[in-house]
Amino acid sequence: MAEYRFNHCIENIRMSPIVAISEEVRKKGVEFKEKTGKDIIPFQRGEIDFATPEYIREAAKKAMDGGLTKYPRSGGEKRFKEAVINKLARYNKVTGIDEDNIVATYGGQEALELIFQLFHGKKVGGFAPAWSCVLENFVPYANVEFTEVPLEKDFSVNYDRLREVLKDVSLFYLNTPQNPTGKLFTKEEVTKIADMCLEYNVYLLTDEAYERIVFDGNSHFSPLSLEYDNIIGAFTLSKTYSMTGWRVGYLVTRDKEIARLMRLGNYTQTAGVTTFLQYAAAEALDNVEEDNKAVGAMIEEFRKRRNALYDGFKEIPGINFDKPDGAFYLFPNFSAHIPESVQGVERNTYIYKKLLEEGVAAVYGSCFGNHFVDNVRFSFSGVTIAQINEGIERMKKIFR
Amino acid sequence: MAEYRFNHCIENIRMSPIVAISEEVRKKGVEFKEKTGKDIIPFQRGEIDFATPEYIREAAKKAMDGGLTKYPRSGGEKRFKEAVINKLARYNKVTGIDEDNIVATYGGQEALELIFQLFHGKKVGGFAPAWSCVLENFVPYANVEFTEVPLEKDFSVNYDRLREVLKDVSLFYLNTPQNPTGKLFTKEEVTKIADMCLEYNVYLLTDEAYERIVFDGNSHFSPLSLEYDNIIGAFTLSKTYSMTGWRVGYLVTRDKEIARLMRLGNYTQTAGVTTFLQYAAAEALDNVEEDNKAVGAMIEEFRKRRNALYDGFKEIPGINFDKPDGAFYLFPNFSAHIPESVQGVERNTYIYKKLLEEGVAAVYGSCFGNHFVDNVRFSFSGVTIAQINEGIERMKKIFR
Repeated sequence: MAEYRFNHCIENIRMSPIVAISEEVRKKGVEFKEKTGKDIIPFQRGEIDFATPEYIREAAKKAMDGGLTKYPRSGGEKRFKEAVINKLARYNKVTGIDEDNIVATYGGQEALELIFQLFHGKKVGGFAPAWSCVLENFVPYANVEFTEVPLEKDFSVNYDRLREVLKDVSLFYLNTPQNPTGKLFTKEEVTKIADMCLEYNVYLLTDEAYERIVFDGNSHFSPLSLEYDNIIGAFTLSKTYSMTGWRVGYLVTRDKEIARLMRLGNYTQTAGVTTFLQYAAAEALDNVEEDNKAVGAMIEEFRKRRNALYDGFKEIPGINFDKPDGAFYLFPNFSAHIPESVQGVERNTYIYKKLLEEGVAAVYGSCFGNHFVDNVRFSFSGVTIAQINEGIERMKKIFR
Repeated sequence: MAEYRFNHCIENIRMSPIVAISEEVRKKGVEFKEKTGKDIIPFQRGEIDFATPEYIREAAKKAMDGGLTKYPRSGGEKRFKEAVINKLARYNKVTGIDEDNIVATYGGQEALELIFQLFHGKKVGGFAPAWSCVLENFVPYANVEFTEVPLEKDFSVNYDRLREVLKDVSLFYLNTPQNPTGKLFTKEEVTKIADMCLEYNVYLLTDEAYERIVFDGNSHFSPLSLEYDNIIGAFTLSKTYSMTGWRVGYLVTRDKEIARLMRLGNYTQTAGVTTFLQYAAAEALDNVEEDNKAVGAMIEEFRKRRNALYDGFKEIPGINFDKPDGAFYLFPNFSAHIPESVQGVERNTYIYKKLLEEGVAAVYGSCFGNHFVDNVRFSFSGVTIAQINEGIERMKKIFR
């Protein structure tokens, strides 16, 4: 048994292995450069290489100079909530929401953390693979018992496995479009999952961070559009508007008692979201013309990168997977390239190490739970097409 | 027994009665205006009526336009921490601090909340009267058992009472300069309190939000300058630079394990403090010339207001208290004006109601714990000298 000096929920939080990977990539990068004169291709990064659109920065400056530097209103500024209501109706087809259904939060992160805290000590389920932060941070901090419901190898849902877990949990975490698979859950899938949650009296927490990053005419289906009271949506401006460092997001639920409690939680943790940033966020959401321009250009670039990376993988033997419809990740399975004799902890990093040796950085599958340890996550949010092509060439030399 | 649907630590958080007071003042304000043609004097407000200095806003804009909009570094940006280290040495006489001793937080609020969470479920002590947010928010959210150590009527420390409580708690909360009394704990007091904490193996959490708001040549003594490992300091830029709505602060401790855990806690809750705001905060702390100008002007104005309000109270019979040396509050005792027959809940709001009836808004003492229910807090952070004088005239009519 571990001995705890302090609150064990904090002592059990782990720094994401992705941070350790970044450290290692930085170190290896120096060696690699010395040896080859070239840079490591940074497929490990979840950061976006676009600037925050100017119209949003200008709105922040205007709000700051206009004196919107006083304590924020508890739960969020009226102007921000109005923009969220309009955006939910326009983009998510979510209507019937008023200000008391919304809480401004520090990114999707605080929205998710607060909801996990609401279910402190209870049982929670979620699909595997799962975003590492859920497993490393929210689960220990809220001291929940987390059960992974593995997706099939092609990332489709096994409803029988889902049903078994839903019988036993209070909350289910659904991330769509999904990190790390890029899977965009269809309207049919989302509806079936939400219906099953309703059937078993389970709250459904939906992480919609990548809601706008969808390709080829597909669209994200927001669970909240189903109008069930048991759904809590966590949203962020981080990915849509290249605002990762701004830390602005919000949660939405038709259950006003939950919203009230989350307002108290947010106030207790931080006294609310930076006032003038809420006004900038409102402008980001409200200015449809600028939004379409900025987001459209970003998605078009991501689409090109996804295609280049996906098409590249087709040239690597033993790698077969469907082209994902959303987010900015590919999560191919490398089982064909791992000897049967390599097992356990060694297996987890076998491909990762091989790749890094040849100047390709990515994130190994065990960062996302227990079920996809032969997979590796490649992010295309921070790499150019040239870097992608170079990365593919390097991989072709490893995996013949 | 209450029945809990969710995490009882969140369900037990109360919205501060000060928020309810603000609501009531807003409503009564309309009636009062109709009846008298005049406005209520807002002594209840903790908000500051100055703008954030321009040099800080410009630094934020520059950082934003310079691309400092990406995810913050875990625990805080290097530039911010360097500025904090310099500020601690320059202003607080705290040296021997490096980056691993500091965590950037969303205001003093998140620093305090995280430390309370670190002591989740344990026993905590603190002087009464105490900042309402500690009692209403941090105590229930961290599920700590809080024991109030009442100050004497003149706000001096009773060390025997303190000793009894220190024998029984893991953490002691000290706010200096103090809300709501304006008491600036002297170097001797702080040292004696810190020594006693050390003696009884108690961590000392110091809330130094008002560190720069001190008058008449006095100076704030930072407990951290004692170089004890058991001290954790919570700081904010909110009051010093009129940045209440910016939500930037930090915690400092010589115990690197605590700092490490708090970095994990901060990351889990919010993924870190808005990147470009940390650069603006660094400029706020680092630009000594602009700082002196801006903070100097603010303190001079607060000094005038304090004197006007304090001198005014001298004209009201039955009100006697020492002029406080810090923060922007007066906390006079009104026992002389409350009939012996008025007891219990009614007593708590007796003076408050009388004042509000005559157009003077203030915060009743029971918002700050159980021991000073006959006192009332008057803030001079958001009132002009003319408003103060008018408020005094109105009170002179009530208390003859």
